[in-house]
Amino acid sequence: MKKQPICLAILGLGTVGTGVVQLLESNLGEITRRTGREVKITHVGTRRQRDDIDKTINQSADLMNIVTQDDVDIVIEVMGGTTTAKDVIIHAIKHGKHVVTANKALLAEHGNEIFALADEHNVKVAYEASVAGGIPIIKVVREALSANKIDWLAGIINGTGNFILTEMREKGRAFDDVLAEAQALGYAEADPTFDVEGIDAAHKLTLLASIAFGIPLQFDKVYCEGITKITTQDVKYAEELGYRIKHLGFAVRRQLANGEEGIELRVHPTLIPDDELLANVNGVKNAVLVDAHPVGQTMYYGAGAGAGATASAVMADVMDLVRALSCPSAETANSNLVPHLAFLPQNLDNTRILSADEMISGYYLRVQVKDDVGVLAKITQILSKSDISIDAILQKPAHELGEVPVIIMVDPVMERNMNEAITKIEALDSVVDSVIRIRLDELIE
Amino acid sequence: MKKQPICLAILGLGTVGTGVVQLLESNLGEITRRTGREVKITHVGTRRQRDDIDKTINQSADLMNIVTQDDVDIVIEVMGGTTTAKDVIIHAIKHGKHVVTANKALLAEHGNEIFALADEHNVKVAYEASVAGGIPIIKVVREALSANKIDWLAGIINGTGNFILTEMREKGRAFDDVLAEAQALGYAEADPTFDVEGIDAAHKLTLLASIAFGIPLQFDKVYCEGITKITTQDVKYAEELGYRIKHLGFAVRRQLANGEEGIELRVHPTLIPDDELLANVNGVKNAVLVDAHPVGQTMYYGAGAGAGATASAVMADVMDLVRALSCPSAETANSNLVPHLAFLPQNLDNTRILSADEMISGYYLRVQVKDDVGVLAKITQILSKSDISIDAILQKPAHELGEVPVIIMVDPVMERNMNEAITKIEALDSVVDSVIRIRLDELIE
Repeated sequence: MKKQPICLAILGLGTVGTGVVQLLESNLGEITRRTGREVKITHVGTRRQRDDIDKTINQSADLMNIVTQDDVDIVIEVMGGTTTAKDVIIHAIKHGKHVVTANKALLAEHGNEIFALADEHNVKVAYEASVAGGIPIIKVVREALSANKIDWLAGIINGTGNFILTEMREKGRAFDDVLAEAQALGYAEADPTFDVEGIDAAHKLTLLASIAFGIPLQFDKVYCEGITKITTQDVKYAEELGYRIKHLGFAVRRQLANGEEGIELRVHPTLIPDDELLANVNGVKNAVLVDAHPVGQTMYYGAGAGAGATASAVMADVMDLVRALSCPSAETANSNLVPHLAFLPQNLDNTRILSADEMISGYYLRVQVKDDVGVLAKITQILSKSDISIDAILQKPAHELGEVPVIIMVDPVMERNMNEAITKIEALDSVVDSVIRIRLDELIE
Repeated sequence: MKKQPICLAILGLGTVGTGVVQLLESNLGEITRRTGREVKITHVGTRRQRDDIDKTINQSADLMNIVTQDDVDIVIEVMGGTTTAKDVIIHAIKHGKHVVTANKALLAEHGNEIFALADEHNVKVAYEASVAGGIPIIKVVREALSANKIDWLAGIINGTGNFILTEMREKGRAFDDVLAEAQALGYAEADPTFDVEGIDAAHKLTLLASIAFGIPLQFDKVYCEGITKITTQDVKYAEELGYRIKHLGFAVRRQLANGEEGIELRVHPTLIPDDELLANVNGVKNAVLVDAHPVGQTMYYGAGAGAGATASAVMADVMDLVRALSCPSAETANSNLVPHLAFLPQNLDNTRILSADEMISGYYLRVQVKDDVGVLAKITQILSKSDISIDAILQKPAHELGEVPVIIMVDPVMERNMNEAITKIEALDSVVDSVIRIRLDELIE
């Protein structure tokens, strides 16, 4: 008996949606060779009629209607946004449809509710495309590292930010200048807030942290700092010291002094050693470094955005579902797929997410001082009194005004202590301006 | 109803087998949180009784008997070799047991037969641990990139070779010297042939190529060249030109002049640009770069060997099988797992594996010439007549004997043409010694 084709509805025909249509046109042969099951698009959700879409595919703007159709097995939501997209996905789930989405904002903010509903209706909401584009980081963390205890991960998960920092370093250009170019190239939105303030990265980090540690999605607890305050001056000093500044999302499991575990979720610019692979991920590319026991460090690199990369991730999810739907019993099939957040929903735990105050990291400090005798001694004394250990000091030649920047790199310290020390340093007579601080991580295994 | 635990038999208690035992001890909590199913070791196959193994686990040297036991669901073969291991795996399959193995040599040489038998008996032979240790490259290529058409891949898939080349470059040490150290450190075997002659890499490449292109395993058709002839001199010249020498396995799909497709399977030292991530993978680490449509280039990095990394990969396979075995119907479960070679067995195709003669790559040539006027003109003329395009020339200062090395880098050329040109160059009066040649690849997307 010939099996029925698996039918897809694609909601949204922007860059990603069009990429999925094109992928299915170009690679259908390879796909069928792998699964033995025909896969076809039966519906597309689009506001305006498109002439470049195969005539056999139904086009409609009525998304709520599309997802209830009998000739839809899998709904692919690639329109973005957190309002209509949410309503449509919930409607699809309630009608027993599997969902594949690239919508990181929606899942980071409403994923707990959506995944619970999907479990209730015995369907899956797959989301490989929502983090790091074409890099299969969701599958890797949920399945390939599933026998590991994940200690931490650090990722370049926003291509726009990485493009800007790469240009600043390679060409000595200023932030605003590169941002304008990124907007012209289409790498950055007209309103670049989500990218340059780290919100997009925080959405993705929320998802990564949950599947790494088995905790509910907690976007509101991510500490988030963007790249808007990074100057070419700091990029240059970092380089002189053998470091590069990358905008990283960190999810870190920590043993606390009281014996409990705590989790740090933070997105911020970070100095990392320039011989680390992660430091050499340039332009719009993404990469995620995972440190887990017993596998050690593994890293995953690729295009974080774009039609082809995102369509590849969307279709990887579809392929998993096609295999599941090809099982004799659909109920069985679903039970064979990995849990939404890698861990069974009843086994997610409430490990405390640490406040910014409690987080620990190394720091790069740039202190602008009057060229006085003794100021360096005063600063190092303050640091020493706060139990902050200095790793390196770089004093630059005096400017015309007799002011010099002093660069100090310190070993990992609790943010609370760092804040106290900085307040004292800023109170010194010889210190002009606020202290510039950027986190620093050696990425030690 | 409480489900029965999934029972494992581990055959071989060397580094990897012991690693699996330790992983299950340390991470059982995380594993159970993920699958909800108890996993336990019921049997270990070992020649001599071990005191450090839990007393509830049966120890025996009778492997053929172990794999037939009722309290064994999954057989983990981590003893290596291609004789006993083959017999035992076949016996296990015939008794309906799933198999997880790290045995690249066995699968590269006998995998077609073993996978066919497994399909016949409705079980899986999983082998994540057989390629690149802790890097989940099998899962990535078989599942995460499954909607892509894979164009080529290039991998550092032998840690010993990479350690040797890294030391030669970083410290200017000679091959023999580093090899002796690698043996002392336990990175290289007493008989290092498999590592330094590229045979181990060829085994792994055989597996990668099959799952990338959907072709039967064809180890005997891999062109294989080791690193024993690499000199510190060539490492240094490569560096001056902005390249590093890495021992890479390449699987490349090529469109031939007659419209057909051909596949290159080759393992050899290769100059690659020093700003490529792959060029910055150092020491015993492994990495695989995959170029596929439409995802573009993605790269996967991690520990290629060692107890923890290999145990992580073994257990990832076990976790997939645990989920499958947890389905209401075992028959259904198996149909839901990805095919052994990524493509359905009936869809594997017979794309021709190209002979060495037909392969195409760039080249680094080192020609030792007498310091005559005109010799460079003669060499470039020969290359030009063979339609070989020169990318760069580096002429080094004369040695005391009036002999100089001339370094020439040429654009991709068919090996047949390169051979002809080299024969002519070696026939020139001014050319002393054989021409040293090392392949070169820009790794262009």
